[in-house]
Amino acid sequence: MTHDEWVRSELEAFSKAHGFIYTPLREIETRLGRLRKHMKELEIEALLAAEKMDCFYFSGTAQDALLFIPLEGYPLLLVKRELERAKIESPLEHTVRIDSLRELPFLIKERYGRLPGAIGLEMDLLPVKDFFRYESLFPGSKLVDASTAIRNTRKTKSPFEVGLMKKAGEIGKQVYHEAAEILKEGMTEIQFGGLLEAAAKARGHEGLLRVRSFNYEAYSWHVLSGPTGGIVSQSDSPMGGLGLSPAFPVGASMKVMKAREPIVVDFGICYHGYQADETRMFSIGKMDRKFIDAYNACREIHDAVLSETRPGSDCEAIFLRTLELAEKLGYKDSYLGPPGLQCRFIAHGIGLELNEFPFLAQGHAYPLEEGMTFALEPKIVFPGEGSVGIENTILVTRDGYEILTPLEMNIFEVKE
Amino acid sequence: MTHDEWVRSELEAFSKAHGFIYTPLREIETRLGRLRKHMKELEIEALLAAEKMDCFYFSGTAQDALLFIPLEGYPLLLVKRELERAKIESPLEHTVRIDSLRELPFLIKERYGRLPGAIGLEMDLLPVKDFFRYESLFPGSKLVDASTAIRNTRKTKSPFEVGLMKKAGEIGKQVYHEAAEILKEGMTEIQFGGLLEAAAKARGHEGLLRVRSFNYEAYSWHVLSGPTGGIVSQSDSPMGGLGLSPAFPVGASMKVMKAREPIVVDFGICYHGYQADETRMFSIGKMDRKFIDAYNACREIHDAVLSETRPGSDCEAIFLRTLELAEKLGYKDSYLGPPGLQCRFIAHGIGLELNEFPFLAQGHAYPLEEGMTFALEPKIVFPGEGSVGIENTILVTRDGYEILTPLEMNIFEVKE
Repeated sequence: MTHDEWVRSELEAFSKAHGFIYTPLREIETRLGRLRKHMKELEIEALLAAEKMDCFYFSGTAQDALLFIPLEGYPLLLVKRELERAKIESPLEHTVRIDSLRELPFLIKERYGRLPGAIGLEMDLLPVKDFFRYESLFPGSKLVDASTAIRNTRKTKSPFEVGLMKKAGEIGKQVYHEAAEILKEGMTEIQFGGLLEAAAKARGHEGLLRVRSFNYEAYSWHVLSGPTGGIVSQSDSPMGGLGLSPAFPVGASMKVMKAREPIVVDFGICYHGYQADETRMFSIGKMDRKFIDAYNACREIHDAVLSETRPGSDCEAIFLRTLELAEKLGYKDSYLGPPGLQCRFIAHGIGLELNEFPFLAQGHAYPLEEGMTFALEPKIVFPGEGSVGIENTILVTRDGYEILTPLEMNIFEVKE
Repeated sequence: MTHDEWVRSELEAFSKAHGFIYTPLREIETRLGRLRKHMKELEIEALLAAEKMDCFYFSGTAQDALLFIPLEGYPLLLVKRELERAKIESPLEHTVRIDSLRELPFLIKERYGRLPGAIGLEMDLLPVKDFFRYESLFPGSKLVDASTAIRNTRKTKSPFEVGLMKKAGEIGKQVYHEAAEILKEGMTEIQFGGLLEAAAKARGHEGLLRVRSFNYEAYSWHVLSGPTGGIVSQSDSPMGGLGLSPAFPVGASMKVMKAREPIVVDFGICYHGYQADETRMFSIGKMDRKFIDAYNACREIHDAVLSETRPGSDCEAIFLRTLELAEKLGYKDSYLGPPGLQCRFIAHGIGLELNEFPFLAQGHAYPLEEGMTFALEPKIVFPGEGSVGIENTILVTRDGYEILTPLEMNIFEVKE
C-alpha cells in the first residue's frame, strides 16, 4: 500500500481510535461568517491566513498550509506538504497542494476568476520577507493588516470550543491532585515540574501553551518555590522564576524545594489546542502566615472580579478596582509584581493562545461579552522570599460566569 | 529589600549555585567580530537584533530585549523588562532599559552621535508590523535584510558552544539508558515520551528544541511505534507521527506500544540553549527482520556520510551520494520518507536552533567547515507499518569529525 492510500483508507479511523476530535463544518462556517463581517469593515476582498493557529481555527487542520478566504465564495486550503492528511482533518471542501508560493496567484485566478483588489494579512506576525514576496506576487493588490479582524473573530468561544477547554480543565484537576501525591521535600522544581508534565501528557495535554507573539515561547508550567517565586523574567507576568539557564531563564529550576516554602504551581493544560490555565499554591508542611494571608487576599481579589463578571462589565474598570482592593488589603507594592515591574493586567483572554481578547487590564476599556474566556490570576510577590497566587479559567455566560477549572481553591499542603 | 536590590546582591550567586553558566565576554567579542565582517559585505552600519536566540547569541541574555550592534563602537543592549537580571546574564557593558520603541532613535543618537545610514534587520522572522514601525522611527535609514549575515556568523561553533552541546549529548545518553528501563509493553507513546522528558528535564534539558521559523513549533521528541512511524505531518521530516489531536498532529500519540513493533525515539536535548539531537530504535522483544535490515542500511548510510565528513567536503554531493547508496541497498522508495513526500536532506545544522547551516541537502552546494555541527539522520519509512532510523550530532573537526552524542548505536531491545 502506498502512503497516500494508507492515509485515505485508514488514518481517519486510526486517529479517532486514538482520541482525535475534528472541528465540525458548521463550526468553521460560523467562524467564517464572523470573520467576513470584520473583513467588510476593513474593505478587503480576501484574507490570506498563514499563522498556524489562525489556519487551524478557520480550517480545522494544523498541517503546513495557507488558507485563502475570499469575502464571497469558498475558502481554499493550500497545503504545502501532507495534502491527504489535511483533507481528513479539515472539513473544508476545497483543498489543494501547493509546492511553491509562485503558484498562488495562478491558483487564485484559476478558481476565482481574478485577483483580489485588497488582501488581508496577519501583519502582527508575518515575517517581512514573506510580505515582500506577497507584494511581488500580487503587484496590483493592496495588502492590509487584518490581524485585528482575526483576533476579534476569535474573541468569543462557541460551545464546541468551551467543551474542549472544559476537558482541559478536567485534565488539570487530575494533574493537580496527582501533584499532591508527587511532591516531596528535597525534589528540585524541575523534577516536580517534569513529572507534572508527564502526568498531564499521559492524559492528552499537548505540552505547548501557545502565545500569539514573535518572541514569546510556548511552554507549560511554572513551578516556583520560595525565592525563585520572587524572580522576574522576560515575560509580562508578575514573576517568571529562575529557569534552567540564561538561555531559558523562566519557570522551574534546579532549586531544591524546602519545607514551609510557598510553592507556586502555575500549570496550564492544552487539549486539542484549547487551553485551561490555573495556579494553585502548594507547601510541604505549613507555609508562613505571611504567605497564607497574601493568598487569602488573592482569593478575595479573585472573587471580587468574579462578582463583576458578566456581559457589559468594563474590562479596564474591573482591573482598576482590583488595584484599589489590593491597596486596601495592604498589598499595594507587591500586587502583580515588585515595584517598577508590576504587571498591568489581572486576566488575559485564553483559547488557542494565551493572549487572546479580552484583557482585564489598563488601557482595555471595552465590555465583556458572552462567550469570552479569560484566565484570572491575582498574584502577590515578595522579593527574595516568594510569591503566592491563584488562577482560574473563566467563561463569561449570558448573565454571569462559569469556572472552567473545577479544582478546589485551598492550599495543597503535603506532609513534611 | 527591594527586588532590584535582591537581584543585584544575590541573583548571580543564586543562579550559579543552581547550574547557570554565563557566556564569557571574549566569546561574545569573537562572535561580534565575525558578524561585523558580514555587515561590511552588506554595507550596513548597524544591526538591530530582535529574535530571542540572535539576542542571546550576541549578548548572553534571553531577557526581553533588543540589541543594537554598530559596525564600530560598543553594542547597546536595550532591555524591555528585567534590566537588572539582564545585566547579570550579559557580559556586555552598555545596557539600558527601554520602555517604548519610540525611545530607540533618541537613545542611538545620544550614544553614537547620529543614526545609521543602513540598518540590518532579521527580515526572515521580524513581523511586518515591527518593520513598518522601524521605517517610521528611522525615516532616513535604509533597512536591509541581515538574516543571512547572522546565520553565517552562527554556522561554526566555538569550543565553548561545543562544550555545551557535548553536555547535552551526555544528558541524552543518560536519558536513553533510562528509557530502556522505562519502556514497557502496553504504555502509550505519550506516556513513554512524557517520562523521557521528565527524566531529561531533571538533568537540565530545557524542553524546547528551537527552530528558526515563523510557524515551526519547538518541542522535544518523537516517540513513534509501528504504523504511527509511517505517518507524515506538517514538518519537513521523513515522518511526523500521529500526535495528540488535529491541533498538535505530530510526535507521540495515545497509541499503545506493542511487542515487536519498531519504536523510533527521536529525542533531542537542549542544555543552556544548545542542542544535541539523536535517534535510536527501541523494541519490546525482537522487531521484524525487515526493520532490522532497514536499520542496518541506515547505519551504513550514516557511516558513509561520516567517512566523507571533513572540511572541504561538499554538502550537496554528500547528500546525493546517499541517494545512490540507499538505492543500491534497496530502499529507493522508502529512504527519507514515502514516495512523493521524501525529504531532500540527510542532515541539518544544529546549535541554538535545529535549522542552522549547514544542510547536507539538495541545493546546498557549499563545503563543510571546521567547527560546523550537524544532526545526521538517515531514516527509512514503510507506510502503514513503521519506520526506522538513526541520528547523531556531529562536529566537523580539523581533519574529520567527532560524534557529540556518545550513545551506543545498537537497537535497544527490552524484554517482552
